[in-house]
Amino acid sequence: MDGIGSAQGWVHSASSQTCSRISPTAEAMAIGLLKDNDMLELKAEPLTPEAFAPFGDVIDTRGADYFPINAGRTRRYHDLAKVETLGEEARALISIFVSQPVDVPLELDFLERHPQGSQAFMPLHEERFLVVVAPPGDEIDTNDVRAFVTDGRQGVNYRAGTWHAIQSVLEREGEFLVVDRGGRGSNCDEYPLNVRVTLD
Amino acid sequence: MDGIGSAQGWVHSASSQTCSRISPTAEAMAIGLLKDNDMLELKAEPLTPEAFAPFGDVIDTRGADYFPINAGRTRRYHDLAKVETLGEEARALISIFVSQPVDVPLELDFLERHPQGSQAFMPLHEERFLVVVAPPGDEIDTNDVRAFVTDGRQGVNYRAGTWHAIQSVLEREGEFLVVDRGGRGSNCDEYPLNVRVTLD
Repeated sequence: MDGIGSAQGWVHSASSQTCSRISPTAEAMAIGLLKDNDMLELKAEPLTPEAFAPFGDVIDTRGADYFPINAGRTRRYHDLAKVETLGEEARALISIFVSQPVDVPLELDFLERHPQGSQAFMPLHEERFLVVVAPPGDEIDTNDVRAFVTDGRQGVNYRAGTWHAIQSVLEREGEFLVVDRGGRGSNCDEYPLNVRVTLD
Repeated sequence: MDGIGSAQGWVHSASSQTCSRISPTAEAMAIGLLKDNDMLELKAEPLTPEAFAPFGDVIDTRGADYFPINAGRTRRYHDLAKVETLGEEARALISIFVSQPVDVPLELDFLERHPQGSQAFMPLHEERFLVVVAPPGDEIDTNDVRAFVTDGRQGVNYRAGTWHAIQSVLEREGEFLVVDRGGRGSNCDEYPLNVRVTLD
């Protein structure tokens, strides 16, 4: 296949191939947000729906409502994540990401966001992964950055605009079903941020 | 949780809770479609994208195009299934189905369809499942019914209107990520059909 050709096609149809780098404002620097070369140290917490609520949805049957279908043979855990597809010619996409594992401690130098759409990741082989997020907004306040670790049965859905690390699977190559947005217009920004994430 | 309450809510917002039973026409019976009490015997074939093309998409990285993202750490197998959400207040839903395994031979007495939306099923623990389908249309011609078996790495996406069996996981309880349609209006029909599916 021709990776470059497909990527070019995607620029017109999907969510996160071309990202714009945002520079923190002088004002943001002045009020104590992260400066160049500072490193934010975080320990990953176990992911819970409550802790993740400001950033999006945890996709998991445990604790979720269901109702029976298929004459009782199936439990439908219904509508676990809000799919957002904003802007022109927007539609939901189903893709698979195959990712190489990260080193721990995980060191990041930026977070990214998709202002026009949510992005859901569901592991296909019970992979655990790290999640580093900050709330939507044009600046990232380092006080608001959180790091989580999943337990293999959990997926996540980042709300449109939520700042997040690129996919960070632990221990082995991971395969994830991804539901995100296709459509016209720019849908990816990057914000420089030095973060080091440790695990217990 | 209150299954009934959730199910009632879903009648107004989602895809397949209340199904209308369609009766084959006298004309359909006369031109040789399946009669009451006839049994269609099928042997499940290995699922391939080519064989499944009239019915929808096979969700699988093998043979699919990808392009690199995340500075090369991730391969994005992009836009593997077409999500269709037709009609009023339509939107894409992400749910999880937990299904009890079927007996083999699998005996069915109807197929169902969702005329207003696609429905994708992706196994979360490499579950194999049976897929029984017929092309869109107001009648099912028994000559057009096909049975497939997946290999654990494959998901399927039924195109809007494709007739299909209810979820039929093999061997053990299965857990599937499901992407389908929420919205107003009726989105489920059932068509009576007696089918017995065997495996090699």
